[in-house]
Amino acid sequence: MRLSRFFMPILKENPKEAEIVSHRLMLRAGMIRQQSQGIYSWLPLGKRVLDKVNAIIRDEQNRAGAIELSMPTLQSAELWQESGRYDAYGKEMLRIKDRQDRPMLYGPTNEEMVTDIFRSSVKSYKDLPLNLYHIQLKFRDEIRPRFGTMRSREFMMKDAYSFDLTREAAEHSYNKMFAAYLRTFDRLGLRAIPMRADTGPIGGKLSHEFIILADTGESEVFCHKDFVDFDVPGEHTDFDSVEGLQAIFDKWTSLYAATSEMHDEAAFNAVPEGDRLSARGIEVGHIFYFGTKYSEPMGAKVQGPDGKEHFVHMGSYGIGPTRLVPAIIEASHDDNGIIWPASVAPFDIVVINMKAGDQACDDTCELIYAALSKAGKDVLYDDTDDRAGTKFATADLIGVPVQIIAGPRAVANGEVEVKDRKTGARETMTIEAAINRFVA
Amino acid sequence: MRLSRFFMPILKENPKEAEIVSHRLMLRAGMIRQQSQGIYSWLPLGKRVLDKVNAIIRDEQNRAGAIELSMPTLQSAELWQESGRYDAYGKEMLRIKDRQDRPMLYGPTNEEMVTDIFRSSVKSYKDLPLNLYHIQLKFRDEIRPRFGTMRSREFMMKDAYSFDLTREAAEHSYNKMFAAYLRTFDRLGLRAIPMRADTGPIGGKLSHEFIILADTGESEVFCHKDFVDFDVPGEHTDFDSVEGLQAIFDKWTSLYAATSEMHDEAAFNAVPEGDRLSARGIEVGHIFYFGTKYSEPMGAKVQGPDGKEHFVHMGSYGIGPTRLVPAIIEASHDDNGIIWPASVAPFDIVVINMKAGDQACDDTCELIYAALSKAGKDVLYDDTDDRAGTKFATADLIGVPVQIIAGPRAVANGEVEVKDRKTGARETMTIEAAINRFVA
Repeated sequence: MRLSRFFMPILKENPKEAEIVSHRLMLRAGMIRQQSQGIYSWLPLGKRVLDKVNAIIRDEQNRAGAIELSMPTLQSAELWQESGRYDAYGKEMLRIKDRQDRPMLYGPTNEEMVTDIFRSSVKSYKDLPLNLYHIQLKFRDEIRPRFGTMRSREFMMKDAYSFDLTREAAEHSYNKMFAAYLRTFDRLGLRAIPMRADTGPIGGKLSHEFIILADTGESEVFCHKDFVDFDVPGEHTDFDSVEGLQAIFDKWTSLYAATSEMHDEAAFNAVPEGDRLSARGIEVGHIFYFGTKYSEPMGAKVQGPDGKEHFVHMGSYGIGPTRLVPAIIEASHDDNGIIWPASVAPFDIVVINMKAGDQACDDTCELIYAALSKAGKDVLYDDTDDRAGTKFATADLIGVPVQIIAGPRAVANGEVEVKDRKTGARETMTIEAAINRFVA
Repeated sequence: MRLSRFFMPILKENPKEAEIVSHRLMLRAGMIRQQSQGIYSWLPLGKRVLDKVNAIIRDEQNRAGAIELSMPTLQSAELWQESGRYDAYGKEMLRIKDRQDRPMLYGPTNEEMVTDIFRSSVKSYKDLPLNLYHIQLKFRDEIRPRFGTMRSREFMMKDAYSFDLTREAAEHSYNKMFAAYLRTFDRLGLRAIPMRADTGPIGGKLSHEFIILADTGESEVFCHKDFVDFDVPGEHTDFDSVEGLQAIFDKWTSLYAATSEMHDEAAFNAVPEGDRLSARGIEVGHIFYFGTKYSEPMGAKVQGPDGKEHFVHMGSYGIGPTRLVPAIIEASHDDNGIIWPASVAPFDIVVINMKAGDQACDDTCELIYAALSKAGKDVLYDDTDDRAGTKFATADLIGVPVQIIAGPRAVANGEVEVKDRKTGARETMTIEAAINRFVA
């Protein structure tokens, strides 16, 4: 992508409304724009990151056997009356009347709808286990949306829903998502720690929040420090192995970890003092097992091997991609801007032409841009006529992992500079060497 | 994907509510499910097709230089008051009050919002041309939604918006989208004919609808029959060439083509009788040039090379992916079900195990499934214990282009049958030959 043809409205000033660093950097880098209170557009740079985050989430959901569909954003009130949540859900639910005066709502979550889909077509235990997920917009009319897309009203959520015949089978489904979440956050460059959690309005018996540690986190969390070095399940994890997944779950829940709502001072104090980690955290995922809470009132049942009908045991599993993007920034930035993990960077490499219009610089940059693009790299080519200092600042701000810098002096020697955004290390090398480093 | 682990709720009976063949087939194949009147879930099979359609649309938008972002579904009424459309737009606009009692709406289109994004950050003609698009849900509260996702209330739209300094430049932007649309529909396996169109509530001076011919089309259309054989712009089309794109536009508008609203009986009668094509059509795309209709009231202007401020000239360009899927089915099906063009098929190949549980059949199918999947093919493996007749009917219904059929007799000879869904042609060949045919 040539920057001259891209749309990346960089802000020179720090936006006053932004209280936390991720919000500030997302606005400054032109990743998002607020359209109404708590409602954002994802501008092209932000959209690219969001797409990469979603691709990783999707990949790991699929690996764990979940099946993607897409449910609509608007739901009928009737469905929520069946579960009893229509009245129970407070003002965060955006209630709507259509032109026929029928009560509708903008879905804050999808337990009711997916249960309705399930009961309309699944009749036998032979079709279980089943896990259906979608990545869809949700709306929660928060009284005080803040921190940019970290806590917005219209937001994106990956929500998965599992259906099983028995509690034991449902626990295996829960463990699949537990392991998938560990893998997902790891691939996003985050260290997420599962913590026993309150079940809130979703309800249920078993629940974990996945928390990343960050100074700007909204909640206080307490855990054993060994979590920081635990191994994440590998890509060849067998999601069909009940024992294998149980072992992963057991290991990752073997040490103390709790959010402030579930905190048990005495239990935490039993952890050796040097191993106690008390920090601020950001919730990036939340999983629930809630048994027959929805299947009973909504009549979602299957015939079991015994010939009798059984209400299915369900769980739900949420990750907020539009929240993950700022969470990644909170965990990875410096004074100059964002430092993207390679897996979610909006571009792999930025090529900086220090003197656009200079024939040698232009030719060199075009050569590198073409070679790397052809090799399948996402390359941003800064071909604008901004001055070099502005280009360096922009490249640092938007956090692309690698910068290839072509200035007149180096180019005259057939060389360019390669800079690592994270370490700041710069290396001068031939143009060919620079290309070869990234074309393997 | 193993069918035993997929979620594809096939209906055995023809759904009574479906009036047209695409709606009937989408319900029967378990592609969609109605959740409320005119509001649908896309079940996994449908979601796969929708994703492939969107990928082609996106690819061609990017090729034409449009930049993707993502605007939210909910908009503030204020924005629409600026353009004057808040009061003008009728009951199709879903109006909402949030918990603070602020008037909002579920966006039926995004001219106002994208103009707001533009005016907040673009100040100079040097940043033009600019074309921003997104693929996002929209809501239009139709009084009579029907034909499944062909005319639903919540639907997906790819909407692009171009910004230019002058009318001439805006016409080039229009021609880019014109050519991109021809390419898009061609890749989707459709023959779409651009027809001069009424501009409706979007407004404007120049507008074309892209229409595919289908007996179940909603509107009557009239055109020269030569359109059916016109060449579509190739993948190396130079979208920067003003003359090149103008020539494409001129050619594709050189012959008579009009929807019934714009029909000119006398002009049509001037076409030689044998060349007149009068048929029913389905609108699959609509493009508009509307000059300064939004930029003037909303103050979207840039500084020109003359140092003065100019209101930008705009156009908008819509394609409805959730409408395209049934349109493709209307154009490509037979009595047994859907016949997907390869480019949008939910799977490339279905492997049918005629006797699951038979060791030789199982081994053969597993071998083929693994080899084709490894080669990057999307393979559906029907490993269920349904009887062979049911499996054949399902494979035909869901319209996967190629069926590889493994029955005990053929497998005993080391052979399988390969069936072409479209022609019905069957060919017996060795297992190796079957694999090699699709692994190139």
